[in-house]
Amino acid sequence: MVKFVSFTREGAAGYGLWQEDGILDMTGFDNHAGLREVIAAGALKALAQAAVGRTAYLPHDAVTLEIPVRDPEKILCVGVNYPDRNAEYRDGQAAERPSLFVRFARSFVGHGSPLVRPPESGKLDYEGEIAIVIGRGGRRIAPEDAYDHIVGLTLCNEGTIRDWVRHAKFNVTQGKNWDASGAMGPWMVPFTHPSQLDDVGLECRVNGEVRQKDRTGRMLYNFRYIVNYVSTFTTLVPGDVIVCGTPTGAGARFDPPVWLKPGDVVEVEAEGIGILRNGVVDE
Amino acid sequence: MVKFVSFTREGAAGYGLWQEDGILDMTGFDNHAGLREVIAAGALKALAQAAVGRTAYLPHDAVTLEIPVRDPEKILCVGVNYPDRNAEYRDGQAAERPSLFVRFARSFVGHGSPLVRPPESGKLDYEGEIAIVIGRGGRRIAPEDAYDHIVGLTLCNEGTIRDWVRHAKFNVTQGKNWDASGAMGPWMVPFTHPSQLDDVGLECRVNGEVRQKDRTGRMLYNFRYIVNYVSTFTTLVPGDVIVCGTPTGAGARFDPPVWLKPGDVVEVEAEGIGILRNGVVDE
Repeated sequence: MVKFVSFTREGAAGYGLWQEDGILDMTGFDNHAGLREVIAAGALKALAQAAVGRTAYLPHDAVTLEIPVRDPEKILCVGVNYPDRNAEYRDGQAAERPSLFVRFARSFVGHGSPLVRPPESGKLDYEGEIAIVIGRGGRRIAPEDAYDHIVGLTLCNEGTIRDWVRHAKFNVTQGKNWDASGAMGPWMVPFTHPSQLDDVGLECRVNGEVRQKDRTGRMLYNFRYIVNYVSTFTTLVPGDVIVCGTPTGAGARFDPPVWLKPGDVVEVEAEGIGILRNGVVDE
Repeated sequence: MVKFVSFTREGAAGYGLWQEDGILDMTGFDNHAGLREVIAAGALKALAQAAVGRTAYLPHDAVTLEIPVRDPEKILCVGVNYPDRNAEYRDGQAAERPSLFVRFARSFVGHGSPLVRPPESGKLDYEGEIAIVIGRGGRRIAPEDAYDHIVGLTLCNEGTIRDWVRHAKFNVTQGKNWDASGAMGPWMVPFTHPSQLDDVGLECRVNGEVRQKDRTGRMLYNFRYIVNYVSTFTTLVPGDVIVCGTPTGAGARFDPPVWLKPGDVVEVEAEGIGILRNGVVDE
């Protein structure tokens, strides 16, 4: 399976392919500045083909992995989206539509970089999720066409500063946008078949202990619906990322709550995508 | 007063200065792609100086005005922020922190272009606001330093599809992000003195009738606090836009509510900034 990565190497932005033996540096392919531009040009396959036969690997540790699409026009996140998790809110309100919020790219680090716990809060929490990357843009995309607009998949630890989520009445913006509080990666895999999304296992572990575990087949709002719903109001463009919701079991739901602390290791894993692994440090 | 504008002319993006006699096209100044890059380079003053003495005006109607910073890294909006408006919610909850949400640039049109009412809703509403543009980035900016980080001011009609704001429990993302549902402009004026923000009149009119009218001195969260609060969790960068909240009197608050309809003209005016005027059309 092809694994597209974005990275920083000696201070410069690059991109290429992650392989067992190292990273194939494809930076500048066809004059594209980054993976977003490659996606927008419909050139992902060409990029993968151009890499065939190359063996001039960079060592994995020669680069810092970044989120796969570094500068998407938008990153939209779906809130409560698995039945058990919704039940946990126990407020009797059935959600008829998905909650949506926005995260800025700078709220995420790449695979291997630590999540940052800020001095303002001790309540850093994890949320393991699958994220879809838009390949072909569109507005009012029909559910039956939705998969044609998805070019790739990645993983997200939608890390949250839990007490800042409840700072105000109408939204969760603050608690969801602390710099370096979440992660995406490690790579983007091409989306080529519905079986990659329809019913895959998703799991999140902290220090090896399974905290979240569910299957996408149980999502309240499936991927097709999400693409349809979001594109009703906003035009999706190549490189846009939609983070599609987390299963039950975030630290906030334990009694008492269990927050992430420096030294913890969080892993988000989904069948067919990989494992996103990040430590935790204090700022 | 200098008035910086972004525009589209014959399909191409441009920027320059709005003057009485026309527009001074400064596109490509010092190789900057747009006003965001000019701001990031600290070159706004140099841009204005380079325009002195030029008289090769484009007619005003030769361009389509765009939002002043076309592609900011982020546009953050403050929710309820004037005392009367907060009281209107009548839910007994005092907000201790400002509500924040995010809008995408494509949810705004420039001065003179119509707001678009989509077929999915008849509830397009106006919200007149003042928006600040960040010149110097930073994190955890102290309130007393906040004004040093603001480079310019503009106006915003934070147009909203009111019924989609309440689609889900935790946020307002959907109703605040319909393509072309709001407006910003007409221009950005330089921010050089506290008196431009501390207590200025803000008004919103529909077809000449005053619907919203208040003074920034009455804001629940003043501009200094907003910059401080937002920069606590996210790093502000040059070109970022913060839309700072609207006075009482949006159409949703009338009994029965009064929604915008095709043919209406909405004007947002603030002392020292100008008048942002937009019509309304059906998609």
